[in-house]
Amino acid sequence: MTLSRLSLIISFILSTASISGQKLDPPTLSLHREDILQDPERAVSASITNDFETLFFNQTLDHFDYRPESYTIFQQRYLIDSKYWGGANSDAPIFVYLGNEAPIDGAPTIVGFLRDNAAQFKALLVYIEHRYFGESIPLGMSFEEALNDANVRGYFSSAQALADYAAIIIHVKQNLKARSSPVIVVGGSYGGMLALWFRLRYPHVALGALASSAPILYFDDITPQDAYYSVVTKDFKDTSETCYQTIGNSWSEIDRVADEPNGLSNLSKMFKTCKPLESGKELKNYLKSLYTITAQGDHPPTYPVTVICKGIDGANTTEHGILGKIFAGVVAYNVNSTCYVNPPANMSQTDLGWRWQRCSELVIPIGITNNSMFPPEPFVLSSFVDGCNNSFGVAPRPHWITTYYGGHDVELVLRRFGSNIIFSNGLRDPWSSARVLKNISDSIVAIYTEKGSHCLDLFAGKQTDPDWLVMQRKAEVEIIKGWIAKYYADLLAFKK
Amino acid sequence: MTLSRLSLIISFILSTASISGQKLDPPTLSLHREDILQDPERAVSASITNDFETLFFNQTLDHFDYRPESYTIFQQRYLIDSKYWGGANSDAPIFVYLGNEAPIDGAPTIVGFLRDNAAQFKALLVYIEHRYFGESIPLGMSFEEALNDANVRGYFSSAQALADYAAIIIHVKQNLKARSSPVIVVGGSYGGMLALWFRLRYPHVALGALASSAPILYFDDITPQDAYYSVVTKDFKDTSETCYQTIGNSWSEIDRVADEPNGLSNLSKMFKTCKPLESGKELKNYLKSLYTITAQGDHPPTYPVTVICKGIDGANTTEHGILGKIFAGVVAYNVNSTCYVNPPANMSQTDLGWRWQRCSELVIPIGITNNSMFPPEPFVLSSFVDGCNNSFGVAPRPHWITTYYGGHDVELVLRRFGSNIIFSNGLRDPWSSARVLKNISDSIVAIYTEKGSHCLDLFAGKQTDPDWLVMQRKAEVEIIKGWIAKYYADLLAFKK
Repeated sequence: MTLSRLSLIISFILSTASISGQKLDPPTLSLHREDILQDPERAVSASITNDFETLFFNQTLDHFDYRPESYTIFQQRYLIDSKYWGGANSDAPIFVYLGNEAPIDGAPTIVGFLRDNAAQFKALLVYIEHRYFGESIPLGMSFEEALNDANVRGYFSSAQALADYAAIIIHVKQNLKARSSPVIVVGGSYGGMLALWFRLRYPHVALGALASSAPILYFDDITPQDAYYSVVTKDFKDTSETCYQTIGNSWSEIDRVADEPNGLSNLSKMFKTCKPLESGKELKNYLKSLYTITAQGDHPPTYPVTVICKGIDGANTTEHGILGKIFAGVVAYNVNSTCYVNPPANMSQTDLGWRWQRCSELVIPIGITNNSMFPPEPFVLSSFVDGCNNSFGVAPRPHWITTYYGGHDVELVLRRFGSNIIFSNGLRDPWSSARVLKNISDSIVAIYTEKGSHCLDLFAGKQTDPDWLVMQRKAEVEIIKGWIAKYYADLLAFKK
Repeated sequence: MTLSRLSLIISFILSTASISGQKLDPPTLSLHREDILQDPERAVSASITNDFETLFFNQTLDHFDYRPESYTIFQQRYLIDSKYWGGANSDAPIFVYLGNEAPIDGAPTIVGFLRDNAAQFKALLVYIEHRYFGESIPLGMSFEEALNDANVRGYFSSAQALADYAAIIIHVKQNLKARSSPVIVVGGSYGGMLALWFRLRYPHVALGALASSAPILYFDDITPQDAYYSVVTKDFKDTSETCYQTIGNSWSEIDRVADEPNGLSNLSKMFKTCKPLESGKELKNYLKSLYTITAQGDHPPTYPVTVICKGIDGANTTEHGILGKIFAGVVAYNVNSTCYVNPPANMSQTDLGWRWQRCSELVIPIGITNNSMFPPEPFVLSSFVDGCNNSFGVAPRPHWITTYYGGHDVELVLRRFGSNIIFSNGLRDPWSSARVLKNISDSIVAIYTEKGSHCLDLFAGKQTDPDWLVMQRKAEVEIIKGWIAKYYADLLAFKK
């Protein structure tokens, strides 16, 4: 597996990581599509595009208001794969992938879990693109135009997206004569939050939800702000104590060198940067993102954190000392690159869109305090708000997510409310620090693996998958089967 | 109890009953505040206004979007009665009345159920005014200005109202150090729908809901369109077969007389109208509203349907035949009036606001087919849509309520989802035709009385209350006690 593309992604992220000086990292919750698509084993399955139909739905711009503009219609894209489906009037289930902050094109390939299991469920597969991404942009605008218009981007919110999904699912069920088909919604990362929130808000549309790697408790004051970076740190420490120590010692060394005469020039040479560094911080930000993104995506069989640490630990220490080791880690990860740290990059829709989402409603207060391998960088809400205000002219609503969706006392609240939800996580994923820890009720359950990473369970199965991953996916399938069996029994009872 | 004011209310309603020719009746779901306030027994309790504090909350105009205008703040009014409350950090419950389509001023008096039971629960009472009513009108506008501005009235929707309630309840709990206090939301009629929807959407804010007389199934194709008028008819038929027959025969007689030379003039004299009738339909609309509103409000001890039927059945038949009987019914009901049918009237906020709500999202398809004492008048969606479009420039969204809140297959959906909901009804209330029929689960229950009317259980207890009403209220209190007891046990378990 070549990892070279990841450096490009990281630099995408770096270039968008600050908003008027306010850091917005970790940069993205996405599934890191580009990375996965580089995996030759997964690339093969790209041929599945032949199996699905691309459709468009006349979607309402603003579901919750009734101003004249609210009624504006836009085209929302969704994909249907009916290869395995039981067919009209069969009551066979429908698995709906709720798109997250990216175009939907890659979803059928990436979220292989659905295809892997469609046949045994005779399930219809539906993948819905999140509004404002890909080809689902309102008002006939380009993505950039829509994002740059304060009035247009104002409709880019999770509540609107959930209502979009409800409207499309209801439409599909009517259209395909599948009114009684149970719907299971599936999502990863931000999409996992959407899956949870969808089941809680639209139980009449979705029977159950698989919320993979959804940091639903990383809002307001629920989770300590340093939880994310604590896990990144733990991942490195568990992989290699010396690697972890080297990284921990590298930050002051970068500062020291950067402050020397010709320091930046020397650092640029030392790290073979694609263009001269403008500050020590530029390098530190790159490294921080490299470590976080590899911790998040520390997938088998390559385990990128191990790759980096092998580079760091195995480096010839005579050249450049600590920083030589760090650079060896960078090179180990970016095996085919000719330059590092700051290659030319364009902003992706994911980067730009997520930046807006975090600055409007998804205010995730992530900071770094002590007890990590990173220099402290606390999250200060007022600074974050100022930064967003400067960038977008509106302030984030830091309490909206917990007001609308909840989060505080989640076990107390859901113990006697709701059903049919799987919270799946891998504990090496830093986002898992804001997960639901344990089973809340008989049918609201937490399934996690000690060694798993971000959204790993949603990926297609591979020959090289470790047993614990195979077991996790199997457990999820069995639980969903149970929901559906109970539903069919209820349906039968009601038809009598 | 004088009933004279009711004629005024009916005429209010009549004057707003059509939108460009499209009938929008039955006219209102409200609690008919004016009627109740005429009751001397209840008027006494108006002194309770001394017990509560009037407060205002800085409310967000548009919770779901992030356009610059969305951030506009308006003052939303709410009332707090802490006379019986257990106090800060006591975990004593909070009962929240979710205001419906009327100013909140009258609520503490009308919804006596809360005050009657506050002491035994040591409950804080909160009454929140629905946006756009009373003193909770956005943008510093008058009610009329707000309703007449297509962009401003566009934010007048149930989803926004529910989010308002969530924000205020969370604020109150923080402010009064009542974070762990269980919240029970209570509402009647449209407010009952809000209570149900609030519990389903904000389970992290409200532990349970008492949804009184909420016709939550009168949307889309769930309930037959003629259900409402079937119950009105049944109420009259059950009260008096001859009364019912006289009414059934009266419509063609009105048409016949109206078509005669000087027919309208004769009808005007016959019914002692306050001003000359402009059509036979004007009289028929008045009578139709009189019968529906009295069926809806057929409360003990007076039972207005009985009052009307006694008038009709006891009339001297020699004068004016059938129409003489009908007029005797009108007079029996409006004992202190000097003229009838069309007294001078102003539109209330309830009338105007509800008209907009029905033309935007609350598309309740009520029509009259056969098998009723009324002339057929089917609900035709396309005509309704055209009428609303002509009046407001936007079309209703007839499927939105079922998309967002559900309704189809409600028992199947809620059997394994949600908890702590009481659907209360009185079966003489025509709105009860769109009720949940039976207990759905252990804690989602239907409590109804055969003889009850619209929202009757929410009113203050009276010496004259029949046993079945006393029992209904008692059953509701016991159920709510059960929810709260279970919650305290859970809370204790979690604190351990």
